[in-house]
Formats: sequence, structure tokens, C-alpha cells
Amino acid sequence: MGRPVPGQRRRAVGEETPEDRELPFLDLDALEEQARDLLPGEVFDYYAGGAETETTLAEATAAWRSWRLRPRVLRGIGAVDLRTELLGTPVRTPIGVAPWAYQGMAHPDGELGTARGAAAAGALMTVSTSATHTPEEVAAATDGPRWFQLYRLHSARHTDDLARRAGDAGYRALVLTVDLPLLGRRRRDLRSDFALPADLRLANSPADGGAPELQPHAPAPWTFDDIARFGDLSRLPVVVKGVLRGDDAVRCVEAGAAAVWVSTHGGRQVDPAVASAHALPEVVAAVGEDAEVYADGGIRSGSDVLTALALGASAVFLGRPVVWGLATGGDAGVTGVLDGLAEELAHTMALCGLPEVRSVPRDTVVPAGVIRRT
Amino acid sequence: MGRPVPGQRRRAVGEETPEDRELPFLDLDALEEQARDLLPGEVFDYYAGGAETETTLAEATAAWRSWRLRPRVLRGIGAVDLRTELLGTPVRTPIGVAPWAYQGMAHPDGELGTARGAAAAGALMTVSTSATHTPEEVAAATDGPRWFQLYRLHSARHTDDLARRAGDAGYRALVLTVDLPLLGRRRRDLRSDFALPADLRLANSPADGGAPELQPHAPAPWTFDDIARFGDLSRLPVVVKGVLRGDDAVRCVEAGAAAVWVSTHGGRQVDPAVASAHALPEVVAAVGEDAEVYADGGIRSGSDVLTALALGASAVFLGRPVVWGLATGGDAGVTGVLDGLAEELAHTMALCGLPEVRSVPRDTVVPAGVIRRT
Amino acid sequence: MGRPVPGQRRRAVGEETPEDRELPFLDLDALEEQARDLLPGEVFDYYAGGAETETTLAEATAAWRSWRLRPRVLRGIGAVDLRTELLGTPVRTPIGVAPWAYQGMAHPDGELGTARGAAAAGALMTVSTSATHTPEEVAAATDGPRWFQLYRLHSARHTDDLARRAGDAGYRALVLTVDLPLLGRRRRDLRSDFALPADLRLANSPADGGAPELQPHAPAPWTFDDIARFGDLSRLPVVVKGVLRGDDAVRCVEAGAAAVWVSTHGGRQVDPAVASAHALPEVVAAVGEDAEVYADGGIRSGSDVLTALALGASAVFLGRPVVWGLATGGDAGVTGVLDGLAEELAHTMALCGLPEVRSVPRDTVVPAGVIRRT
Amino acid sequence: MGRPVPGQRRRAVGEETPEDRELPFLDLDALEEQARDLLPGEVFDYYAGGAETETTLAEATAAWRSWRLRPRVLRGIGAVDLRTELLGTPVRTPIGVAPWAYQGMAHPDGELGTARGAAAAGALMTVSTSATHTPEEVAAATDGPRWFQLYRLHSARHTDDLARRAGDAGYRALVLTVDLPLLGRRRRDLRSDFALPADLRLANSPADGGAPELQPHAPAPWTFDDIARFGDLSRLPVVVKGVLRGDDAVRCVEAGAAAVWVSTHGGRQVDPAVASAHALPEVVAAVGEDAEVYADGGIRSGSDVLTALALGASAVFLGRPVVWGLATGGDAGVTGVLDGLAEELAHTMALCGLPEVRSVPRDTVVPAGVIRRT
Repeated sequence: MGRPVPGQRRRAVGEETPEDRELPFLDLDALEEQARDLLPGEVFDYYAGGAETETTLAEATAAWRSWRLRPRVLRGIGAVDLRTELLGTPVRTPIGVAPWAYQGMAHPDGELGTARGAAAAGALMTVSTSATHTPEEVAAATDGPRWFQLYRLHSARHTDDLARRAGDAGYRALVLTVDLPLLGRRRRDLRSDFALPADLRLANSPADGGAPELQPHAPAPWTFDDIARFGDLSRLPVVVKGVLRGDDAVRCVEAGAAAVWVSTHGGRQVDPAVASAHALPEVVAAVGEDAEVYADGGIRSGSDVLTALALGASAVFLGRPVVWGLATGGDAGVTGVLDGLAEELAHTMALCGLPEVRSVPRDTVVPAGVIRRT
Repeated sequence: MGRPVPGQRRRAVGEETPEDRELPFLDLDALEEQARDLLPGEVFDYYAGGAETETTLAEATAAWRSWRLRPRVLRGIGAVDLRTELLGTPVRTPIGVAPWAYQGMAHPDGELGTARGAAAAGALMTVSTSATHTPEEVAAATDGPRWFQLYRLHSARHTDDLARRAGDAGYRALVLTVDLPLLGRRRRDLRSDFALPADLRLANSPADGGAPELQPHAPAPWTFDDIARFGDLSRLPVVVKGVLRGDDAVRCVEAGAAAVWVSTHGGRQVDPAVASAHALPEVVAAVGEDAEVYADGGIRSGSDVLTALALGASAVFLGRPVVWGLATGGDAGVTGVLDGLAEELAHTMALCGLPEVRSVPRDTVVPAGVIRRT
Repeated sequence: MGRPVPGQRRRAVGEETPEDRELPFLDLDALEEQARDLLPGEVFDYYAGGAETETTLAEATAAWRSWRLRPRVLRGIGAVDLRTELLGTPVRTPIGVAPWAYQGMAHPDGELGTARGAAAAGALMTVSTSATHTPEEVAAATDGPRWFQLYRLHSARHTDDLARRAGDAGYRALVLTVDLPLLGRRRRDLRSDFALPADLRLANSPADGGAPELQPHAPAPWTFDDIARFGDLSRLPVVVKGVLRGDDAVRCVEAGAAAVWVSTHGGRQVDPAVASAHALPEVVAAVGEDAEVYADGGIRSGSDVLTALALGASAVFLGRPVVWGLATGGDAGVTGVLDGLAEELAHTMALCGLPEVRSVPRDTVVPAGVIRRT
Repeated sequence: MGRPVPGQRRRAVGEETPEDRELPFLDLDALEEQARDLLPGEVFDYYAGGAETETTLAEATAAWRSWRLRPRVLRGIGAVDLRTELLGTPVRTPIGVAPWAYQGMAHPDGELGTARGAAAAGALMTVSTSATHTPEEVAAATDGPRWFQLYRLHSARHTDDLARRAGDAGYRALVLTVDLPLLGRRRRDLRSDFALPADLRLANSPADGGAPELQPHAPAPWTFDDIARFGDLSRLPVVVKGVLRGDDAVRCVEAGAAAVWVSTHGGRQVDPAVASAHALPEVVAAVGEDAEVYADGGIRSGSDVLTALALGASAVFLGRPVVWGLATGGDAGVTGVLDGLAEELAHTMALCGLPEVRSVPRDTVVPAGVIRRT
């Protein structure tokens, strides 16, 4: 029997999840492979795939990793504080759950499992319009912090009603997804002729089962004016999700947005789009003084999170890792992913001499391969 | 039986072409493989190959993809208008057919098939001097928009006559290809000792069967003065094709050119030449106010087209994809390629918040991997 | 029997070491493979591995090789002088031994073997706190130049005592490693559940066998004030090891450091961190006038050493190559590695027209692939 | 039987050489493979190999290809003139033969074969000190243009004598190779313990068979003063070969050099050194007004030659391709390589609208992947 290496932890946060993994750290690649084994092929592909040539998808993580960390030393850091507030909502971690659709396809618990898993991690959950449980059902499942994400999938009246219900159900912000005026061409789904399971509950469809209206060239696409309108309807601060340009961010904030969410929609819409990690500095420069800025897309490690924070994000959101967590381990799987990433973030911050997520200096990162001459 | 995913189209424009493909989207790689199977190896190579080490060829598509799209949101785009005018010729799409030689080798219908296919797509066809049908025969085949491309392959007198006939036959512009003072060294053809089939009709050769004059060190190569001369002869606006420098573009326009076409001749001439996607901004900066600018070379997706438009091109042209379309599906194959790309373009423009091809802002694209700081 | 090629040496310095190698030059890749064969898998991985995705590890050598040499000619160089002084300690080579832990795991002679091997090469050895021999034992083993490296692994009082003992035992400087407030997450070790052998002597642990205190979120992490404090305790100049930023280097020097050591801790802590080869110019620019600057991380050739010297380092340090040398050949293996690299350095300097390591001009190197226009 | 493609040449210059190749163009890769088959392995490696990690070797060609051509159109180019003068020596091509050693190992004809082959191509040959024929013997073999390359391999007196004999024998310039104060560490040779064949004639060794003096740390290395001294001794203009820096080039010219030859010695000395293609612009900027500048290293195509000319070289030199030509085809093989490259150069120049090698504009090339905005 050996002796412990000084300073080495043999068990990391999240290690018990999911599937009783042996590894004492979060291994997202292995988790994805487990999910691939568990899920029907076309369902896995629906979640895993991107639009067109999947260039945006492929570059998302690589773009965060085009930055390098510049650690600080001798700061006497004894503990790292991951807590922050997002539009006034207190969270225990700056790593939230991005909205993703039809969670009942990934696991029988669907959005309820994700909500419980996120709450256990103290993480913000963004509940999708394309859900298999109603906003009220998800709200009843936990006390965790949550926002509601709004699409227009059916009539304007129906969409307005969803916005009102989100406010009534105690959601703390309304997230307007604006990068989906029509659906991206996802070749995997087109090849597999993917269809939603016939028995899948589309909880937020109209009671009369009215067909979705979202079609190429939607009849009444949203404009900047809808930001204030939905804020009034829901009585919630509005987050605009899917912004990749500084000028657009300015217009959103001028139109009443409380926050802007930099996103390529997981590489499922425009391809090849500028990566979130490359667009984020421009958006922060444009509106960072006036609004909160978040980012998602390809975040897969604690150092990816720290990079986003250094570039000015107040929070980041995870999509596919949470899908794989839910699919393989239900709510515990979700907690394992979120806690595992939070543990990586805290660890990396401690190594970088950074005590709190609310004040990560911009010069914590530098483009990879760049030679600084002061 | 499943339910449709909201917003997902199961059949895309062009899906029925060619070869009754199953895929509901255009798959140019598969189409090329089909053409490779159908055509004699040396004929396929004649079309597919490039000069010398094929560096220019290999970089053409990669160079378009060294740009990334920066989509706009909340623009309320309900429909996308692909129509434009090219030197006064109305077209339904900014994606035209580049001149390519000896189309009778690819399909029995030859240029007539391409012309019918392009017309069905509302696309401009550029008919080559190296054709297996006369300009008059192609003109008679359709009402579609068409330009005539001029080489000097035989005597000056014969070439002048072709220019006059193009004007008489209702072509709307004369395209002078200036990047072929002599033929590029295409190693595939040299290795295969490629020769045109003995029974191939060289429709635009002199009636007396005079041997081609184009040889290394041609006896009387064109100069800038020929631009105005051919304009006068044909009574048509002149497009100069094969320009890769801003200073050359200026001289062309000063010499009377109505438009400049940025091209590496499909990577079949100078190797390694600067890519069209890298030369286009320089040419647009030099003459964009005074002349129309087009580009070809490696365009293989709707996002490639949009990139070219953002960089200042009024139109793009396709070569090899049209060859594979004609070879595998005749005129319907040509239409399938052109419609498929147009569908991709319209879709990408809608996602990028751009309503019309005539006004695509320059800042729609940014070099890949570049971090903007506003 | 052939004749010698003019100017070709058939045997290079260090050729006899280790394992009676046939090659007349140092082959570090082969040496690493020999070590891999000799050592238990998890011990090899303990030495070879890095933190997280091992990006910092993988980039270390590549980053030195992102520079190219610009040789000088006709300087009449007849001999190269590798001698220098480091904080007043004379050495025969600017290539020293970095501190590395538990050397008794690599070879029965442990730190004593490394010390003898380094002394034979005239190279500075940095003895680690995590040693299997006491500082006094290592000091007694040779007359070679040596520094003592300090961690806080146990109580503050115990650590203070180690600092005092280092001064008493004739070490010439105290190296504070400041990039390990907690241990990096080294996945290889976590996967193998790596533990130190039960019979390994932890020579610098407290006499009462007290457990190591280094844990995530250490109770009393060092600050800049500890630099002067440890200098006073040890009566030695203090080197701060693990600095990757110019601003940190300035604070270290202002706090009393005599030298700053640019290091990523062998890629075992922050990942992905800026590479030493990219951080070094910034640190030299910040404090090069006021303090000595050293570097380690990925140095594997004489040209890597020369690059570091050109960028302003006064010395470089080797970690893993020395491990492999000790593991495969004991003290002779260590000497072979150090002499082999020194021979490469002297040879490269002669070819570059540089007579002495103490004055290598900055313009000896240029970023790879860069075109200079004067 | 087919018909010729207009403008396609079925046989290119040099096609008959060597080994009755079928290909109607020069295929240097295939030629190298033929040489590899013909030569003893260690002899092939002696010629093919480079120093240390062979990074300089590997990058040589890639560096030329980090430039792209920007062709000019409509210049009315009817013929290309490859003739030029190099230090007053008229040549039919700007592509010369670099000095390379012990040519009798590659082919029984040795330097006489190379001289005859170069003369047939109208190309300048640089005869090496390390030759298997005396300068007088090579001079007697042909009327072709030739320079003599000088090393110090034996006593100063012997070297001085060689310089005088070169002048007496009608050589037109003396090339001092200054990048070999000692031999680079060529690992292939060290691994194979390579020795010159015992019966190889070292024609320029002292009559008494005195051993070579070139050793690491040569007793009396050359300085800038030797430039004028050897010019006086030989009564020839002096070319300094092996310069990679602008400041060194200035000192050479100030010391009396008539020309500077940018070279990495075929990647056989400093490794990793800046590539010739990246150093050339700096050297031209420094001395291009006052001296001729040449380049070698990795030139393998007509476009590589044109790139060097555009960057300011008056001529380029070939090493290994000539070795493979001589080894596989004797003098005809040498001519085939030189003519083949000249044909490629002429062809590429015609396509680029350039009529003569003496005035290739700098803006003919642009770094690859760079976007010009005028």
C-alpha cells in the first residue's frame, strides 16, 4: 500500500456521477461515448450534430483554446468563491444550463431531472420553450434558479401567453433566442429523416395541437422592438441569446435588453459562423459597461470557463455536456457535470491566483502562440 | 411514425436531381464521386485537375473558408431576394455558370444541356469558345441569360468573327479570358497523354479545320487595347476574366472593361497563385466603384457565395460542380446544382439577417480565428 | 575501410552514457523510451505526465521551436565558452538541473546520483524539498554547485527550518516554487490512483511523520512578503520559480527576489498556460535589468537552450531529460544528458558565430515563418 | 486516336532525361526515388540529410511556398528571356549549380559530368573545393560558365593556393562558404558512421595526403578581412555564401564582397535556422542596391525560382536535384534537371506576364493566406 502524493486529491467533486464512474475527475469525452451507446442513433445525432459542414460546431471548443492562461503567483489565495449574481439571481456557480429541446427524449425525467440536477449544483437552468414539461411543472420541481427561454414556434398569441406564464411561474428572466428565424440545415437530421418520437409530449404546444408555425421564412419574425414588448408581457428582465456582433449587442441594449448572450446556437444555425470565443471580446467591448454578457458554445473545461470570464462574460452555459449527463445519469448526471466543471474552474482559478469569479481580469488570457513584449 | 421537428424542411430545392438522390440537400462531394464513376478516368481528370502541384486548386475552397460569417439578428427578415442584374442582364440568382470546355465530353447534350439547366434555375450561363456547339445553337436552345467567353485559339480573324457572332446571337456580354496566354501545365493530362476524343465536335474551330494556334509563346497575345477592340466588334460590354491584382483591374477598367472577373482559371494556370478569395478584396478596393466584380474558384457552398458577395462580388460562377451536374444528370443535374446552391445561399442569408443579394455589407465576414476588439 | 569526412566528429561528448549507447550523439527520445521500459508504468507516467489535457506539456518544446536562429558569419570564432555565473555561483554550463521530486523512485541513488552527475558536468543542481535524501546528505555527496528548492508541504515551522538548513548546508540560493498553491490535476496519476511507494524515504518530512499539509486551498499560502522572509531565514539569495508574467516578476524583484525563474512547472500545474518560451520575453523586458531570469519547460536541444539565452535567460533548467538519464544510467546518465546538451549548445553557438553564453544577442532569434524587411 | 488539346505541349524541355523517363515534365520526387534506389544507402543519406532534427531541411521548400504569385495579364508577352549576367558572367538561365562535395560518389564522371551537364543547359556551375577532380580538370571539361567555391579544409597556405589556381584556371568568381566554421551534426551520417569510400579521389587535398584540418573549433577561422584577401589572391570577384542576416550582408559588402549568397547550406549546418526564403528579403533590403544577391535551399519548381527572383535574387542555385540528376543520368541527367526547371520558370513567367528574369517586380509575390486591402 502506497502513501498519498502530497497535495493530490484522490476524489474530485462529481466523481460519483454518473454511472458509478471510476474516474476521480469529470471525463466529458467518455460521458459522450456513454450517451452515444445509450441513445438511439438518430437521437444522439440530433443532439450532437451541427449545421451544414459542422465547421462552427468543430471550432467552438478550439476557439476557447486559442487563448492561454497567464497565472498570477503569491496572491495568498486560500479559497475560491464561485458565487455570483446573474441579473440579480444568486447562483453558486457561473456555469449554467443552456436551453435545449425535448429533454424527454434524452431521459424519462426530462426537464424535471435537469432542473433537479442543476439545483443541486446551485446552477442556473434555462428552460426551453421546446420542452416536454410545462414551465409551471419545471418551476414546481425545484427551488433552483431558473430562466425561461422563448421561441416563437406557434402563433404570436400563444408565444405571448408563454412569456406571461414564465413571469407568473417565478422565472427570473426571459431569454429570447434570436438566431433561429428558421431552422439551420442539420445534415445529420436530414440524412436520417429525423422525426420526434410520436409519443413525445410537446408540453408547450397549443392545447388544440396546432402545428408549429416556424418555417423557412417565418410569417412574422421578431425585431428589436420585441425585446421591450416581451419584457412588459413577462415583467422580467430580457436576455437576448444568439448575438455575435458588437453593433447588434448595442441595439439590443438600447432596445431594453438587460443582458446579451453570445452564442452560435451550438453550431446548429449559421455555418461557418465566427466562434463565440472570438466574438465575445467584441460584444463585451460594445456593451460590457451597460449589460451583462454571457457565452456558450464549446465550453468543455474549467479553463474554458475561466477564459470566457476573463474575456468579460459574467457566466457561461453548457448544452451538450448536460444532455450527456442527463441521458446517462438523470439528475445526478447533470449535477456531476456541473459540479465537475465547477471543481475544475475553482482549481484553475486557485492556480491562477484568482479568488472570485466576479472579478477575473482581462489580462488573465492571451492569444495562444503570441509573444508579449510588454 | 414520428412528428416533424418544428422548422425542419424535409425536402430542399434541387433534391430531385440528379440520379434520384435520396438526400434532401445538395451533396457536391457525392456528386463528384458519381461523376468520377461515370466518366472515363482521363476525362474526369481533365476536368478535375489543376496545374503543376495543384496548390492553387487545393487552396481555392479553403481560402473562402478562411472567412467566417457574422450574422445579424432581429432584422425581421421574412424572405430573401436572390435576384440581381449583371451588366444589365436580370438573373434570378447571383450564381452563374463559368465557361468550361468541350461539354460534349461530359454529356451528349453538351452546352445545350447546360444552357437548359441554367435557364431553368434562372442563372447566367457563360458559353465557352471551346464548345461543342456553336454560339448560335446554344442561343437557340433557351431564353436564359447568357454571355459568350472568348479565347484566341485560331487566327485573329477567326477570333474577331466569333466576337461579332456573339453580339449578333443575342449574348449580353463578351468575357475575355486573359489568364491563358499559354496553357498551364496540367500534370494529370500530361501523365495520361490526354487527347480530345477524335469524334468530338469542335464547333468553333475554323471551317477548314485549321489547327489551333494557341501554343506556348503565342504569336500575338492580347493586350489591354483588345478590350475596347472586342467591345466594338461585338457591340457588347466586355468582362475581363482572370484578374488577380488591383492594378491590373484598374488598367482593365481604364481600357474599357465593364466588369472584372477574379479567377485562377480553376487552378489550371498559375500555380501557386493567390486565391480568388484573397485577391477579391484588393480588386474590389481598386475598381469596385467603377465596375462590377465577379469571382470564381472553389465556391462549393451557400456560405462561400455569401462570403464572396460580402467581399464585394456582384456574382460568383461555378465550374466543376456544373460539370458533375451535367455529367450525372444532364440539364436537370445542372439545375439541381444551381438551385441547391441558391437554396443554401438564401437559407444562410436569412440566418444572417440579410434580405437581398444586392446589398451584402462588407462586415458580414471576418477572417477566421481573428479576435475583434471593436 | 573508409576515410573520415573532413570536420566530422565520430564521437560526441556524453556518448559513453548511459547504457553504453551506440549513438555518438544524445538521443533524448530514445532515452525516454529506455526509461519507459525500465520504470513501472505509473512511475513513468508520474514523471512524464502533465495536468488536465496536457496542452501546456505538449506545447513546451514546440514553443521554443517557434523561434528560428539567425547565425552570424565570419566572426573568427575559435572556441565557445559555456561558463557563466548564476547569482555568483560559477558553473561550467548554463544548463542546470531543475528540482524534481522523489528521485529515489527513478534510481536507487536518488538525489545523490543526480548530484554526482551534475557535478561531473559542472552543472548547477536544484535540490527539491520533495527529496529522498536530506539537503545535508546531498551537500555531502559532491562539491558541485547547488541550490535548494523550497515548498511548503508541512507546517510553516518545518518549512522555515528547511530554509535555515539549506543556508547552513552550503546551498548557494533558495528557490521558492510559487506555482503550486495546490497540486495540478494530473489525470494520468488520478487514473492510475498513483501513490508513492510505501517504502520510499521522504527525507524532508517531519521526524514525527506528520502528514503533508499541502491540500487544495492550503491554510496559509505564500505571498510576496515571504520572499524577503525566506531570504532572511536562509541568508541566501532568493529565486522565485514559476513566474509567467512581467508584472509578477516586477513584484517579486521589488519584494527582494534576486532572480525570477520562468516556468510552467513542466506543464503539471496550470493548463493551458502560456508557454515559457512565449512568456520569457515579457519577463525579461520587465526585470531583465534588475535580476537574473531563468527558464525551464521543454528544453530538449542545444538550439532550444540558445533560443532561451537569446531571449534573455541567464540559464535554463532540465527536468524530465535528467529523470530519464538518472533512471537509465545513474549519475553517468545524468552527466551524459547534461554534457550532450552542452555539446549541442557549444556546437550551435560556434555555427552561429557566438563565442560566449554570457552575451547572446537578442536578435539571434526571430519568430518562425516571419519575414523581416529590416 | 485523339486530337491534341489546344495549347497543350506533349513533350517538355528535358523530357528525354534521365533514364528515358516517360513523363513529359520534370518530376523531381521521382528522380530522388531513382537516386535512392541507385546509390548506397549511406551515400544517399549523406546527400539527402540535414543537421540535427532536420527542421531547416524540412522547411526550405515550404518557405518558398509560403509565398503566392500575383500574375499580371494582358502584357502581350510573346516570349520569355531567361538570360542574365551574374557578376559579368553571361548565363542562359538564372538557375545555377550549387557547390556540392565528392561528386565522384554520385557518378563516375563526378564534377566533369556536372560541368558538361550544366554547360549544355547554359547554367553556371559552382565547383566545390571538396571535389574529386581538380579545378583545372573541371575547367578543361567545358566552356560553360563556372565559379570556384573555397573552403578551408587544410592549411592556410594550401587554401591560398587553391584560390590562386581558381583565378588562373579561368573561373569567373570565387565563392567563400562561410557557414561552415565546423561541420554541422548530421545525425544520419553519425548513425551510419559514414565514411568516404577509401578509393575516392580527394583531388584538392594536399599532395602529401595531409589530413584535413577542419575540426570543431578550427584553429584559424575566417573573418571579414579574408574577403578582400582572397579577392586579391584570386584576382576574382568574391561571393560570400551562407549569409542569412542583413547586417552580415552589409559587412560582407563593405569588406569587398561583390555578391552575397543567402543559404542554409542545404539545412546541413545550423538547425533550426531561418529559411532562405524568409531571410532573402532582409538581405536584399540591406545590400540589394550595392551587390548581387543569390539564394539556394529548397528550390524545387519554376515557381520557387520566380519567387526568389521576385524577392530580389539575381540567381538561384540547386544542390540535391543536381545530385539526383547526375546520379541517375550523368551529364544528361544534370541538363535534364536544369532545363526542366528553366522550362517551368519560363512557362510560369509567361503566365505571370513577365518577359525577362532581370526585372521581376517585388510585388509579383505576396505571403500566402494574406488578404490585401490596397
